[in-house]
Amino acid sequence: MMPGMTTPTIDAADIVHRYWAAANARDWDAFGALLAPDMVYEIPQTRERVQGRAAYLRFNVEYPGDWQAVPHRIVGTGSSAASWTRFTVGDSEAPGLCFFDLDEAGLITRVTDFWPEPYEPPPGRGHLVQRY
Amino acid sequence: MMPGMTTPTIDAADIVHRYWAAANARDWDAFGALLAPDMVYEIPQTRERVQGRAAYLRFNVEYPGDWQAVPHRIVGTGSSAASWTRFTVGDSEAPGLCFFDLDEAGLITRVTDFWPEPYEPPPGRGHLVQRY
Repeated sequence: MMPGMTTPTIDAADIVHRYWAAANARDWDAFGALLAPDMVYEIPQTRERVQGRAAYLRFNVEYPGDWQAVPHRIVGTGSSAASWTRFTVGDSEAPGLCFFDLDEAGLITRVTDFWPEPYEPPPGRGHLVQRY
Repeated sequence: MMPGMTTPTIDAADIVHRYWAAANARDWDAFGALLAPDMVYEIPQTRERVQGRAAYLRFNVEYPGDWQAVPHRIVGTGSSAASWTRFTVGDSEAPGLCFFDLDEAGLITRVTDFWPEPYEPPPGRGHLVQRY
């Protein structure tokens, strides 16, 4: 970058909007263009890791089902963002939560993916909570 | 607000930093000062809801265990933020994920809390993933 030029502002939230739009459209060229070549994808709940853009693209291309991940909240600043999507397959829907790290060029270097599942509430707080 | 005055900028990420600092310090006055009186707390996984600042304060005061929620990522812009904390009690640690909505005064109007738990990976993707 030439001296005196300012660093272009990366809008991490905008990148994540484009990430989900490309994924839902199965536009793998647009999707891959958002990823750094050495990016890492992790699912902490299963301790699974996918290393590199090529493998992660294939992971998504091969992901089974006619799914859509509908953004419910996307927040981000600087080099970090998070999304809460409603992951739908047919009539079923589940929340998907991702945290994203970006490099200085705005490419995604890390996606950490969480899939929280239903569980029974612990005892002892029924006096404070309602069920919905 | 007087005509000509600009709206003060709310830094949603800063509010969430203060939220976790107050919670970890059990400084309930500081914690309560961040909450809107009619705020709502929800756990989608158990479908539990706590309504109002007073009940939510009590929910936190009564929450069992000598826990700390150590921020790992806090991201936010405008009226929305998200946090990924490492929730520790003694030697155990689990991720906690929250999404926050704020009102125009920067008070928290909604906390949505997720607790993703370990599960076994589905078959069919072992050629793309490593376990860690």
